[in-house]
Amino acid sequence: MTTSNKALVNKASVLTIPVLAITAGEPAGIGPDLCVQIAQQTWNYQILVICDKQLLLDRAKQLGLPLTVSDFNENQPAQAHTVGHLWVKHVPLAETCIAGTLNTANSPYVLKTLDIATQGCLDGHWHAMVTAPLHKGVINDSAEVKTGSFTGHTEYLRDFCDCEEVVMMLATEDLRVALVTTHLPLREVADAITPELISRVARILDHDLQKFFAIARPRILVAGLNPHAGEGGHLGMEEIDVIEPTLKALNTEGLNLIGPLPADTLYTPKHLEHADATLAMYHDQGLPVLKFHGFGRAANITLGLPIIRTSVDHGTALDLAGLGTADSGSLETALRVAAQMAAAYQTKRTS
Amino acid sequence: MTTSNKALVNKASVLTIPVLAITAGEPAGIGPDLCVQIAQQTWNYQILVICDKQLLLDRAKQLGLPLTVSDFNENQPAQAHTVGHLWVKHVPLAETCIAGTLNTANSPYVLKTLDIATQGCLDGHWHAMVTAPLHKGVINDSAEVKTGSFTGHTEYLRDFCDCEEVVMMLATEDLRVALVTTHLPLREVADAITPELISRVARILDHDLQKFFAIARPRILVAGLNPHAGEGGHLGMEEIDVIEPTLKALNTEGLNLIGPLPADTLYTPKHLEHADATLAMYHDQGLPVLKFHGFGRAANITLGLPIIRTSVDHGTALDLAGLGTADSGSLETALRVAAQMAAAYQTKRTS
Repeated sequence: MTTSNKALVNKASVLTIPVLAITAGEPAGIGPDLCVQIAQQTWNYQILVICDKQLLLDRAKQLGLPLTVSDFNENQPAQAHTVGHLWVKHVPLAETCIAGTLNTANSPYVLKTLDIATQGCLDGHWHAMVTAPLHKGVINDSAEVKTGSFTGHTEYLRDFCDCEEVVMMLATEDLRVALVTTHLPLREVADAITPELISRVARILDHDLQKFFAIARPRILVAGLNPHAGEGGHLGMEEIDVIEPTLKALNTEGLNLIGPLPADTLYTPKHLEHADATLAMYHDQGLPVLKFHGFGRAANITLGLPIIRTSVDHGTALDLAGLGTADSGSLETALRVAAQMAAAYQTKRTS
Repeated sequence: MTTSNKALVNKASVLTIPVLAITAGEPAGIGPDLCVQIAQQTWNYQILVICDKQLLLDRAKQLGLPLTVSDFNENQPAQAHTVGHLWVKHVPLAETCIAGTLNTANSPYVLKTLDIATQGCLDGHWHAMVTAPLHKGVINDSAEVKTGSFTGHTEYLRDFCDCEEVVMMLATEDLRVALVTTHLPLREVADAITPELISRVARILDHDLQKFFAIARPRILVAGLNPHAGEGGHLGMEEIDVIEPTLKALNTEGLNLIGPLPADTLYTPKHLEHADATLAMYHDQGLPVLKFHGFGRAANITLGLPIIRTSVDHGTALDLAGLGTADSGSLETALRVAAQMAAAYQTKRTS
């Protein structure tokens, strides 16, 4: 593990074709299916999958889709995707996988694919990593993992990259929703909203919108915590005591934060048309809108990492694995967003 | 005040044209403007406005729109709207109103229009009341009202009708969002979610969807309280301890409640296409989606009353009063929904 800032530099300086590494995620879920499905499409990027090579070939056979695979070599020049073919960074499964059936023996394999994908980003072997869904339960049930210690992709990558804070942002083509708090019981949210947390999250969001989206001075709409953003203190004091002064202080640093705004009117055309992103205080304040708007077309982006990481916005769908009915829309969006971020980052670096 | 069950019966038994009473709300706000604006349109209902007659005429002049008014007489047969004319139930202002300028002297007037509208519904003089926005602050600042005692239309009507519980539901043509808790600071929400409250709200929602929307056995999607609906207890215990057993008990009574579902995936086509309504646990869990989807085309409906009441989903917009730029879309929707509810209620009563 290293946090070296070689990330993105090697390839980015010589390549115009983005190289995107997909982790296929839980082998018994739809992750491998989605990789096989997107292989059938046309892409202007090089796509490599970090997974067991045979798993991909077996799943393709099960789905009745044509697939050839080749070993990815980071020293070769990038080349755009060819239909029906995938580059693979082979990581062997511990035991043969049956689609739909979880197996703790393969949990270390799933984590290893993440490690390789992240390290390859840090080392500049590829521009971005795109993660298919994994299954938290089976990882925590594995003998190699301390029960409950694996809380998700995002936290795992944060720790791998030695970051103190990361920010979860979901995005469609025209709406970005970042969150101050993420997977927290609702009763703990109000106390978690501190000036320190808001500041860290807002700075990361501002910084990464510049770095990875080439937005010069991002205009960010910030929701209040309470209904009607507290309605002048009648419906809660956190806006007056915590959020307003924090946003004001951040804006004196040069950020462009608008709020706190009532969440129920923030997501309306009048506000959104002049915004680069929105920042919700908690999970169910922001994500229902985003997923209503773009379910199956939304990507999950982790900000605050030294690398580009996007993800699908859905789970492993074990019941659909191997059937050919899984919808690859979210993985397609995650790939497109990762490629756009890589391109914007290149633009930014060289501009 | 009476809670007599004459509500809707007199007119409903003899009329096929719905008679809808609009309260023009805060006189200095856009309420009177919106009434004048909708008067210019074609409607298959009789529309009467409960307000100061001269206020309407003055505002029409200010907007440069043609308007004649006549005193509404509840003993005459209903007749469909004629363009440029409004029926008025005259309530005199205490002082002449200047558009955009609040005046506490007129606060009792605003409340009186509500009393008359509600009593007329209860007495069956009209089928429904539709409320334009009022201004809570100026009402609470009035000498006649105990400071802070006026918390909003909904609570006022609840008390006027001697109801124990009412339910706030916002609706567009294709999405209905009801709330278990409404205007509560976020930190108080988790403790407010009790089996008793969920039961009262769900029963009212189920009952009124049958009574006023003619839905035989409403299928209602219920959100969890926590992100991912608690994810099996990992992100909060309220789903397991409170919500699940309550929904189960209600379903044995004959309700058709589905949940608790994660709020961020509840509002997606897969779930919504088979639902008659959704029930969110709190304000900012449900309303951002609704308003994102239908701002300016959403009506606020109060369920649990013995009468039909709909409302706009916006505020007084003092800065727009008298200018002619106010958007009457929400009042139009509120009228349409009220008329649909009146028709469904008639259908139900006579079927």
